[in-house]
Formats: sequence, C-alpha cells, structure tokens
Amino acid sequence: MSTSDIDQLVHLLSKLPGLGARSARRATLYLIKHRESLLTPLGNAMATAAANVRTCSVCGNLDTSDPCHICRTETRDKTTICVVEDVSDLWALERAGAFSGYYHVLGGTLSALDGVGPEDLSIEPLLNRVSDTGVEEVILALNATVDGQTTAHYLNDRLSDLGVRVSHLAHGVPVGGELDYLDDGTLATALRSRRSIDQS
Amino acid sequence: MSTSDIDQLVHLLSKLPGLGARSARRATLYLIKHRESLLTPLGNAMATAAANVRTCSVCGNLDTSDPCHICRTETRDKTTICVVEDVSDLWALERAGAFSGYYHVLGGTLSALDGVGPEDLSIEPLLNRVSDTGVEEVILALNATVDGQTTAHYLNDRLSDLGVRVSHLAHGVPVGGELDYLDDGTLATALRSRRSIDQS
Ligand SMILES: [Zn+2]
Ligand SMILES: [Zn+2]
Repeated sequence: MSTSDIDQLVHLLSKLPGLGARSARRATLYLIKHRESLLTPLGNAMATAAANVRTCSVCGNLDTSDPCHICRTETRDKTTICVVEDVSDLWALERAGAFSGYYHVLGGTLSALDGVGPEDLSIEPLLNRVSDTGVEEVILALNATVDGQTTAHYLNDRLSDLGVRVSHLAHGVPVGGELDYLDDGTLATALRSRRSIDQS
Repeated sequence: MSTSDIDQLVHLLSKLPGLGARSARRATLYLIKHRESLLTPLGNAMATAAANVRTCSVCGNLDTSDPCHICRTETRDKTTICVVEDVSDLWALERAGAFSGYYHVLGGTLSALDGVGPEDLSIEPLLNRVSDTGVEEVILALNATVDGQTTAHYLNDRLSDLGVRVSHLAHGVPVGGELDYLDDGTLATALRSRRSIDQS
C-alpha cells in the first residue's frame, strides 16, 4: 500500500477527534499534494506549538506565555471571574466577545461516575484567587449537564462562604447543551442575562 | 482568545478536507493536551513526509522511494497494469489485496468542463510502458462517473492500437460511485469479474 512514513502520518492523523481511518488517508494525500502550502507549514506549526504552548498558572488557559495574555491584560475587569470547565469554553466566550473579566479553567466537572472529586479539579486555586484578590462576582459558566450543574452547586456553596456574589449563565443555554457548540449571539445573551444563585 | 502559535495551528488544520473551524479548534486542543503522545510525533511525521515522499516516476504512486515499493517488487505480475485516476484508488486496491500486477496513476480524468485533455494526464507514459514492456492486459479501474467512463473509452481506443487486452472493473462498482469509498470485498469482486471492452 504505502510505506512507513506515509502509514505513520495516516496512523497519527486518525487519532484526531472526528477523523477516522478514511478521512485520515484523505487528509494525508491532501497534505502530500499540498506540500509547500500546507504539509510543511503544519508540521512547523505543530513543532512550534509543542515547544511553546503552556498552561497558565493563574487561570489554566493554554497560551505561549505564563501568565496567559488574558491574565496579563491589566485593563480587564478585575472584579469578575468566569469559571469554565475547559479551555475550549474559555475560547468560545472570548470569541463571543461579551465578557471583559478574567477566567478560571476548572479542568472538568465533579463526577461520581468517573470518580472525579473536588481535589481533581482546579477548585482550591479558584478559592485562593477569590480570597486573595478583589473579586466581587464569580460567574459559573458550566455546561448545562448533570455533572456541570452538580459542580455549580458545589462551587456556589464554597464561594458563598467567601462572601462573593455567585451567578450562572441564564437564558440561551439549552438543557443538556455544551457551551462550545453555541453560537456567539446565544452565548452573549446568556452572559448578559446571568442571575444570582439563591444563597439558600 | 488564543495567541498566534495556537491560532496558526487552528488555521492550518481547518484547511484539511473534512475539518471546519470548529473541528480544527477541537483537534488543536486535543493535540496540545496530548503533546508527547500525538502533537510532537505528528509534527515530526509531517516534517518527515514533507522531506521524503516523492512521486514514483514509473507509476505515479506516492512513496518514499522512486521507483515506489510496488514498482520495485519483482515478484508481481508483469503482464498486467491497473490504471487508476488517483493515488487514493491505488491504495484502496492494495488494501483490497486482490491485485498482484502493477499500477499506473493517470492523475485525473478527461474533462471537457474542467478543460482537462489527454496531455494533462499521464497517458503517454502509460502507452510507452505498454509498448516497451511485456504487458498483455490493461485494467481500467476508473471511477464509474461520466468523466471516468469517457476517459476509459479514450484509453481503450489508444490501447487497442497497441494490441493489448483492455478490461474494466465489472460487478460491484455502483453507478456514480467512487472506488475509494467501496469496501474491500466489493472491490475484490469487481476486480475478479472484470471483462474485456468490446473492440468495436
Ligand atoms: Zn491566564
Ligand atoms: Zn511506482
């Protein structure tokens, strides 16, 4: 069929989410046929990303600097932190352009089924950030899944003790939906109409 | 959102067939989260492929050697050449494992609409191979599209003059279908039940 260099490329590409064996073969042929315009630049971009991208020690974002370019921006709203499950959610909110505060990436949600407890997520660092800085509001921008909402309740309990206002995204997030799949307008609406969580 | 290194990776990945902006972002995050196991190896595989893969000067296959590993295999059936439109078709036939002769990649089909004439395809090299070597049969394994069949008729005319037997794939190729989408069993059946083109 093909020799090891090509097979290796097909094999590795087929590991990407959404690419099966067939689409990995198509992508490989396409890359080889566009060697100068795509294959070489993409190989270089991957090497560069592998060398340079790191996790922000403040918020958990992925960037080529630590702290990330958002945490290094002094002009954002220091009184508000938006908590997200994953970096992809942070990127989605930044694309929507509706939030000017800072972020905190949890790295997942609590999950009894998957054995994910509070100590497995970036929760203590979040509580420390809220305690140590002048944060007045924490927006819980978690997915509208069972685990996401369980996590929101847990965080609301912990954050309430610190006397900070806790809110969550309101209108626009479909039940069972994931943030990363929403259009920018819906995300912006949901963010604007956020409401406080009842401090029961 | 993200900085230029990450943006560049998303941008280049989104150019791959079948990957839009969203899936390119997903793939980028996945790659960064699997840096050692996937991002670095894939970057290396792309650099290696860009440096090493070339077009076989005999058959048109893509390989890291010229002639390719198929053309260099002495034990295959030297009396039969299978003509395909694209390297992906050659790979599909090799995966099916039903053909033991040699290949010839045309590099496309004749197309009045797209202005592709005989001189734009690897047709003269095919006729030279057939004239110069002991080829007894040429199998036209072209897609069952209008352009594919037009090309088959043209090649049949040219090859008949050389006194070689010309056949095409028979049962199993759906009308309008493309070889690369067929399962291996169907391809193997179509190859076994190939039939001679009427030498009208
Ligand atoms: Zn940061
Ligand atoms: Zn070859």
